[in-house]
Amino acid sequence: MKVILDLCVVPLGTDLSLSKYVAACHEIIEAAGLKNTLHANGTNIEGEYDAVFRAVKKCHEKVHEMGAPRIHTIIKMGTRIDKNQAMEDKIKSVEDQLKGV
Amino acid sequence: MKVILDLCVVPLGTDLSLSKYVAACHEIIEAAGLKNTLHANGTNIEGEYDAVFRAVKKCHEKVHEMGAPRIHTIIKMGTRIDKNQAMEDKIKSVEDQLKGV
Amino acid sequence: MKVILDLCVVPLGTDLSLSKYVAACHEIIEAAGLKNTLHANGTNIEGEYDAVFRAVKKCHEKVHEMGAPRIHTIIKMGTRIDKNQAMEDKIKSVEDQLKGV
Amino acid sequence: MKVILDLCVVPLGTDLSLSKYVAACHEIIEAAGLKNTLHANGTNIEGEYDAVFRAVKKCHEKVHEMGAPRIHTIIKMGTRIDKNQAMEDKIKSVEDQLKGV
Repeated sequence: MKVILDLCVVPLGTDLSLSKYVAACHEIIEAAGLKNTLHANGTNIEGEYDAVFRAVKKCHEKVHEMGAPRIHTIIKMGTRIDKNQAMEDKIKSVEDQLKGV
Repeated sequence: MKVILDLCVVPLGTDLSLSKYVAACHEIIEAAGLKNTLHANGTNIEGEYDAVFRAVKKCHEKVHEMGAPRIHTIIKMGTRIDKNQAMEDKIKSVEDQLKGV
Repeated sequence: MKVILDLCVVPLGTDLSLSKYVAACHEIIEAAGLKNTLHANGTNIEGEYDAVFRAVKKCHEKVHEMGAPRIHTIIKMGTRIDKNQAMEDKIKSVEDQLKGV
Repeated sequence: MKVILDLCVVPLGTDLSLSKYVAACHEIIEAAGLKNTLHANGTNIEGEYDAVFRAVKKCHEKVHEMGAPRIHTIIKMGTRIDKNQAMEDKIKSVEDQLKGV
């Protein structure tokens, strides 16, 4: 089952700058070979469900290891069986609408 | 790794009444032996990460089988290593604050 | 426009116990006269859009005043024009499905 | 109060292609003069709380007008009082971490 998801991992009980935790998660997602794009409020990931959620688990383990006693994560996940759609297709569809294509 | 999460599975491309899909997911979560509570905007679940995400995957598979071509799911997930906390502890902490305990 | 939403306000840069912040938000929501129910991962609220988002803004202002330098909030919001539905109707629909009603 | 948020408006009870609804919301956000960036799972928006939530309300009204009987929206919202941060700063912080800056 292929999923497209938006992952946002928020460590609590740390200093306020969260970028080092986001960077550590980014490295885990890259090492897992998952297609991904960073944006201002999370990371978009495309891949097989099992591989994606193994990576998400590693992100939590890593962020705890780095010193965060508590983590709050938000995931938005899409699956569809009517067609195969990539992350860039979703953006292109909207851009085509805006151009009146 | 124990997680407390809020799961909200939204089928797209179906009729507007989503309750039969939510009920099917509820049965999957129950069959997995996961502690859970239904609320007006999702289902709270407490359990081991791997067991929880096996159940979430089954929910997507089942809702697609029931005819939904597309699914949009939202998950809020908490983990903590500073203490062991159950779902009911989270609610009780707030209620104690409100009572001035 | 009536909305049913799930509000989860997460203060960052504070101590790990978040219950006093959740309790403060609860009091704001109550004072606004909004129907609400606390659950393990947030607060479900039902009301008019403008009144609800005035209360959400007050929650952020209050939690900052209480000392949180940064806040991360998650909102799931539903609106519908096909029928008037209350929060308790959503739960009852699922329970009826589970009972085979 | 300045907010940075991720908005994801999901119409239910429509055809499966959601791009025309996302495009309509994009035009509302642009017309409101709000800084925004489209990504694969939503739209990041930066602006004053009141202006942002006036635009979000207009998005719901418009998507209902376009024929969606039901809408499910997810919002992630950040506010902070310790420093003034723009959306592009959030991405740059992570990229700097990844480069070892």
